[in-house]
Amino acid sequence: MQKNQELQTLKGFRDFLPAEALLREKVRSIIQNSFKRFAFVPFETPTLEYASLLLGKYGEEADKLLYTFTDRGGRQLGLRYDQTVPSARVLANYQNQLPKYLRRYQIQTVFRADKPQRGRYREFMQCDADIFGSRSTLADAEILALFYNIFKDLGLTNIQIEYNDRQLLIDSLAEFANDQVSVLSIVQSIDKLDKVKPEMIGLELAQKGLKDQKIEKILSKLNNIEKSAKLLDIEQKTLDLGVPQSVLVFNPKIARGLDYYTGLIFEAKIAGSGTNSLGGGGRYDNLIKELAGLAMPAVGFGLGFDRIVELIKEKELIQTNDTAQVLVTFFDQDKYQQTAIKLTKELRAAGINSEIFLEKDKINKQFKLAQDKNIPWVAIIGEEEFNKGLISLKNMATGQQDQLEIKQVIRKIQG
Amino acid sequence: MQKNQELQTLKGFRDFLPAEALLREKVRSIIQNSFKRFAFVPFETPTLEYASLLLGKYGEEADKLLYTFTDRGGRQLGLRYDQTVPSARVLANYQNQLPKYLRRYQIQTVFRADKPQRGRYREFMQCDADIFGSRSTLADAEILALFYNIFKDLGLTNIQIEYNDRQLLIDSLAEFANDQVSVLSIVQSIDKLDKVKPEMIGLELAQKGLKDQKIEKILSKLNNIEKSAKLLDIEQKTLDLGVPQSVLVFNPKIARGLDYYTGLIFEAKIAGSGTNSLGGGGRYDNLIKELAGLAMPAVGFGLGFDRIVELIKEKELIQTNDTAQVLVTFFDQDKYQQTAIKLTKELRAAGINSEIFLEKDKINKQFKLAQDKNIPWVAIIGEEEFNKGLISLKNMATGQQDQLEIKQVIRKIQG
Repeated sequence: MQKNQELQTLKGFRDFLPAEALLREKVRSIIQNSFKRFAFVPFETPTLEYASLLLGKYGEEADKLLYTFTDRGGRQLGLRYDQTVPSARVLANYQNQLPKYLRRYQIQTVFRADKPQRGRYREFMQCDADIFGSRSTLADAEILALFYNIFKDLGLTNIQIEYNDRQLLIDSLAEFANDQVSVLSIVQSIDKLDKVKPEMIGLELAQKGLKDQKIEKILSKLNNIEKSAKLLDIEQKTLDLGVPQSVLVFNPKIARGLDYYTGLIFEAKIAGSGTNSLGGGGRYDNLIKELAGLAMPAVGFGLGFDRIVELIKEKELIQTNDTAQVLVTFFDQDKYQQTAIKLTKELRAAGINSEIFLEKDKINKQFKLAQDKNIPWVAIIGEEEFNKGLISLKNMATGQQDQLEIKQVIRKIQG
Repeated sequence: MQKNQELQTLKGFRDFLPAEALLREKVRSIIQNSFKRFAFVPFETPTLEYASLLLGKYGEEADKLLYTFTDRGGRQLGLRYDQTVPSARVLANYQNQLPKYLRRYQIQTVFRADKPQRGRYREFMQCDADIFGSRSTLADAEILALFYNIFKDLGLTNIQIEYNDRQLLIDSLAEFANDQVSVLSIVQSIDKLDKVKPEMIGLELAQKGLKDQKIEKILSKLNNIEKSAKLLDIEQKTLDLGVPQSVLVFNPKIARGLDYYTGLIFEAKIAGSGTNSLGGGGRYDNLIKELAGLAMPAVGFGLGFDRIVELIKEKELIQTNDTAQVLVTFFDQDKYQQTAIKLTKELRAAGINSEIFLEKDKINKQFKLAQDKNIPWVAIIGEEEFNKGLISLKNMATGQQDQLEIKQVIRKIQG
């Protein structure tokens, strides 16, 4: 294998080197802890499924983005495209083993043969949470509260959750529909109001067949929609669950693209920024039946994991010095190395993440490794330390160096 | 989608329902913590690679087990088959961004179009750790110590690590090789001594072309191999790193199947049981060069993640009551529900994993859910509790129920 194509990843696919992989692990672990605090439990499904499970489930356009192939046994296979369809399969397949009111999360990668572009990948992480089996507004509120708490736990303050009711939107826009243009088709156009000028939406609607309607009329109708009793109920319960009033913003223009939503819909943005949605979701009480033949109300959300990681990196919200806390170094004699080895054992036994220098090399070279790896402390064993039974501990940030007993070393590193 | 093939996973692929998925998450997280204590950092590589990266890298037989296909762009792709080849690609591709003496771990699933059978899957988790860039015996010892500590941290005591030196084995068996049978071919046969009777190995060797040799001679030679100075050095350092003497067993018959090992080789078994290997590894100083053109000594191991999870389940070593600690229930009135909602918020704020019952239902039905989900505590809000400003807390194991203030509830659940 030479320096050629082979050394590259496929377009739209990514390697994660340690710093990035550690950050992603940390973000994932924080999200998992939020899930657990809300009593959510995980599903995992295979990367490969029968292609027939996936084809036709996401719409015609999506079928072209599915990775499908024939295996050696002649089976048509497909790579995971989302986590909803496999979850529907699991719900239908194991319905007798699963509890009522199932709160489940799922964090796995999905595959889309999409045009790669900035921020859009062919393999990316999805992170979903759903409550299955309840139509109650309390389930909606729990989902909103969990959604908010994840951003809070990640340090992403200044989050706004814009919400709406798909049914309310449909009821309000029904009068504009005609034989050519369904109300769902109008909703799909409205969904673009965030990104596209109203005139363009008006043009699109006219092309669809809404010739006698002005976009202004529809906008004016949207601007005058008031929260339904149901939304007020969900909102009150969400507030009682500790979500601040300022986070929740009723936005009657939020439409969410997918046809399958039946009630509450919502998405998260950084307040006052033009940032894209960091995730969203809603209630979809008919989808599981359509997908897997099982009547099962559901409400949930998906997080934009990659976008969230980007934002956390940008704002330096999470420190990932999850690498070694200390590098143990030693001067070139067997007895110093052995003392260094035993010190490393003790430090690890005290719960300190510790690396020991592996070769016999100049002490400066050993310091260099600590710098390269961002290791904040270096322990040094040389003749003087060996004879005194002490350890020199150097703070790499300040340069301060002290001779200490092992207990003191542990206390100092543990801060 | 009806109750048909589609609802099933593909043969050799698995769904993980919550109990199993939680256990796997927990095992993974314990292993990750061990990695971090030894200053290892993660890589992640894509599920899909250019097929040319993978084909021919694992031997002819393995090429048949690779999942390969052509994508819509006409590219030949392959699914991840192991983590060594992609890691070699990463090492070669990013060599200037990576530190010297890199300690990296990688935990991802791999795909083999193998015959599915008990305990063998077509998608399974690999969990690898390697030190790149050092030929020192201290690197070998660090790898052995990490290997041992993972089993210790998982509660798998009674582990034995059998070790050997591939070079020592080759040197010792060289005299038996001839023009027809290479010493590596003899090593490959010897590798089966664990599973196959010596006579069968003798037969195999004779068939290979070792006609004038008796298996007894080879066995007798193996039984008289003594630890090399290098092995003694590695052993001493491993002991100094805290691995008990009783865990380390020199076994000159351990051969490890793969040709690429160049020094230390080892594997873990439960002491005194016929259990298969729970993982193993060794030093492979030439492989990265062969795979990716980069001269890079390496020593590491892979863990049998699925087998380890099975063993932990069997021995009930890890409790995964990672689901809710408490279910908050309430009698059928709006004011009790609101109090219950606020209580749930308080419990979560105190770090308690809490579920709230989502519907208005009989209190017995609510208790039933706690039983179904193995939730150990139930909090109850009814008229009496509401009027007194107290909470009834029921211990589901003992049936004991007390009226408490919220602070007491928190303290009791936190144990």
